[in-house]
Amino acid sequence: MSDQAEPVTATLANYLVQARPEELPTAVREEAVRTFVNWVGCAVGGSRHEAVEAGLAALGPFSGPPRASLLGRAERVDPLLAALLNGISSHVFDFDDTHLRTVIHPAGPVASALLAFAEHRPVRGEDFLHALVLGVEVECRIGNAVFPAHYDIGWHITGSAGVFGAAAAVGKLLGLDARGMAWALGLAATQPVGLREMFGSMTKSFHPGRAAQNGMTAALLASRGYTSSEQALEARRGWLNVLSVRHDASAITQGLGETYEISVNSYKPFACGIVIHPVIDACLQLRERENFELDAVRAVRLRVHPLVLELTGKTEPRSGLEGKFSVFHAAAVALREGDGGERQFSDRAVLDPAVVALRRKVSASIDDALEADAARVDIELVDGRRLELHVEHAIGSKHRPMGHADLERKFLGLADEVLGRARARRLLDACWSVEHLEDVAAIAAAART
Amino acid sequence: MSDQAEPVTATLANYLVQARPEELPTAVREEAVRTFVNWVGCAVGGSRHEAVEAGLAALGPFSGPPRASLLGRAERVDPLLAALLNGISSHVFDFDDTHLRTVIHPAGPVASALLAFAEHRPVRGEDFLHALVLGVEVECRIGNAVFPAHYDIGWHITGSAGVFGAAAAVGKLLGLDARGMAWALGLAATQPVGLREMFGSMTKSFHPGRAAQNGMTAALLASRGYTSSEQALEARRGWLNVLSVRHDASAITQGLGETYEISVNSYKPFACGIVIHPVIDACLQLRERENFELDAVRAVRLRVHPLVLELTGKTEPRSGLEGKFSVFHAAAVALREGDGGERQFSDRAVLDPAVVALRRKVSASIDDALEADAARVDIELVDGRRLELHVEHAIGSKHRPMGHADLERKFLGLADEVLGRARARRLLDACWSVEHLEDVAAIAAAART
Repeated sequence: MSDQAEPVTATLANYLVQARPEELPTAVREEAVRTFVNWVGCAVGGSRHEAVEAGLAALGPFSGPPRASLLGRAERVDPLLAALLNGISSHVFDFDDTHLRTVIHPAGPVASALLAFAEHRPVRGEDFLHALVLGVEVECRIGNAVFPAHYDIGWHITGSAGVFGAAAAVGKLLGLDARGMAWALGLAATQPVGLREMFGSMTKSFHPGRAAQNGMTAALLASRGYTSSEQALEARRGWLNVLSVRHDASAITQGLGETYEISVNSYKPFACGIVIHPVIDACLQLRERENFELDAVRAVRLRVHPLVLELTGKTEPRSGLEGKFSVFHAAAVALREGDGGERQFSDRAVLDPAVVALRRKVSASIDDALEADAARVDIELVDGRRLELHVEHAIGSKHRPMGHADLERKFLGLADEVLGRARARRLLDACWSVEHLEDVAAIAAAART
Repeated sequence: MSDQAEPVTATLANYLVQARPEELPTAVREEAVRTFVNWVGCAVGGSRHEAVEAGLAALGPFSGPPRASLLGRAERVDPLLAALLNGISSHVFDFDDTHLRTVIHPAGPVASALLAFAEHRPVRGEDFLHALVLGVEVECRIGNAVFPAHYDIGWHITGSAGVFGAAAAVGKLLGLDARGMAWALGLAATQPVGLREMFGSMTKSFHPGRAAQNGMTAALLASRGYTSSEQALEARRGWLNVLSVRHDASAITQGLGETYEISVNSYKPFACGIVIHPVIDACLQLRERENFELDAVRAVRLRVHPLVLELTGKTEPRSGLEGKFSVFHAAAVALREGDGGERQFSDRAVLDPAVVALRRKVSASIDDALEADAARVDIELVDGRRLELHVEHAIGSKHRPMGHADLERKFLGLADEVLGRARARRLLDACWSVEHLEDVAAIAAAART
């Protein structure tokens, strides 16, 4: 292949070594902060999941000096183990950020490694945010180079490409030179994580965590002179050729420092499949805008894109997980509780008699004229009043990204129960100001219980 | 593919759970002991390599409670880190065992995990040896199923298949049930290690070490209920399909418990490429058999297979590494020092004036009639005497496996300098009796300095 002549790994390593925080455009910094806020919320929210408990029980006995925090928990562990476990908790609800072009969840591998590293050595907020941008840049560019072939083969790209992001980000904070950075990328290339076959088990959330831990390990080894290939990406038996049947290496190197992949990062407003987000959005807006009692509802009629009933047509869900596949539950719980977070897709919420009663008043019909991010909701009250709303683009979609308040609601919805309202609010404020912290470890400490 | 219907992972997991030590044929036990002896020797011998130093410097600060030994060293680290570092040292000279059909180096991933685990929980020798046999069985059968396609793509099969061996072996000692064993294999499948692009750098030896550590991690997680796929091998997006373009899953399951891959394990007698082994063998035999002074040598004439000069034709090597590519050095140093171990391929040996002088008397010619494992050596003395020897099959080849004494010479050649002669001998004796130990940790302790 012609691109084999291009020194992709060296070009990338040189860029990473030379990049400086002050080069980042303001919008990029802002998106990095939003990415970080969203990631911390997810990690705190997922911190009591049984996957985290199992991981800690299995590996805690092997932890080194407990210098690093597990977000949302009281325990401390060594930074490498913290990278793994925080990465697990941040993905376990599938509620973290998405780079839509590659379906990479960018923050998990990178932020999990970076925050753990910040408890290993002090890191200034500006450098932390810069490393986060660079790590996301590396994993998403490598993802761009191999998507969709690599994903179609069966790699969970968040783990298999994410490991590069973690290595690059930690390598940047370690001050690696260009050769050391190439070695770190080589040590990352040789440790990809994640088969899509694992979807549906706890091992899915293991992927971003292990990618964080592997990437951090790669950077640490390189910093001590552990040698590796310096052509790990482009070599004949390098990562691009071995892990994908097609690739465009120019996607890795073209426009480095000019465009930033984190600019197109996206966040999920609701803890369920994206197809039912327009319905939830519409119900929340109606609840906010109109003045009515739920007891007065006679019927809730949804008009939805065809995919909605194909994927989420379950009328009688019996668990939180099944609730995620029921547009009927989603509408009812959004009307009743005013949110569509993980709590609204718990067993408790799905079995709540008041939610069940309302759910049975919800019906849905297909409207082929609707886009995938649109929905119409029509509520009929017992007095005959009709409340109608048409969502053209759901919140969180490309055309209507989540705003500051949306991210705050999501964060607090995840963190409140774990940390208590006051501490969750303080943590959120600290996250918004991450770039100005003298020592980012303060955030990890604030997220401990 | 038709084999997708076969529950390969479950069949393998069931076998592993049900297998019992007393089922092992005597010859299999004996080969397992030989495998273990060879591995310990290699790990002790490689323990001062700069790759081990770099790995320890980078990751030592993250070590948990130091309960596990680094063979050949004074430091102790946590068992997961010990699995990594002992795996690195056992492969760093490329002197470890080889499963010829797949070119897997079987002991590295499995024994590194097992011995480290034996310092985490007491393990009886019989159980240890059984787990070693099972681990080797799993990695080599999976290797058989995908070789050569998987290797040709660019995977370093020792790491990519080895991780299963470590998971199975540690999972057996943990007493996992069939579902837990399937999860352990799933967690192993999702963490393959090793691109062939890394050959020539320290990252090559990282592969068996990381495979050991990943496999042990997989088993530990599964033992605490960390769930995974139960069809990790055969699923459409499972390991066989994602990491290879062709496979024969029946190679994994057919004849389980009837044949043992460890029976065909092989050991390298000399620390260099296999093509020059016949020459070294011949020189050692001549040195042993004939009575002559090296000062009295006028010329050493080699007749060799064509590949020998193609691969190892360097006439003036200037470093230990270059010495491995010089059949002339190999012959000279074997005649002078009576071995062909790592020490004979050090900078010291290659630059030794007495070896250099003798090397310059060595010439080689191609003999198309010779097999690859054959060589003729003809020594002419200054008094006109001629000493000739024809090696038909080199020691260590399929037709002439290394015997007890050969393995002992190799072990002591590796361990003497590290441990001192007396301690090396005691360690060797302990390794030969590993099956009868009440607690295998005694071997790890005996290998510490």
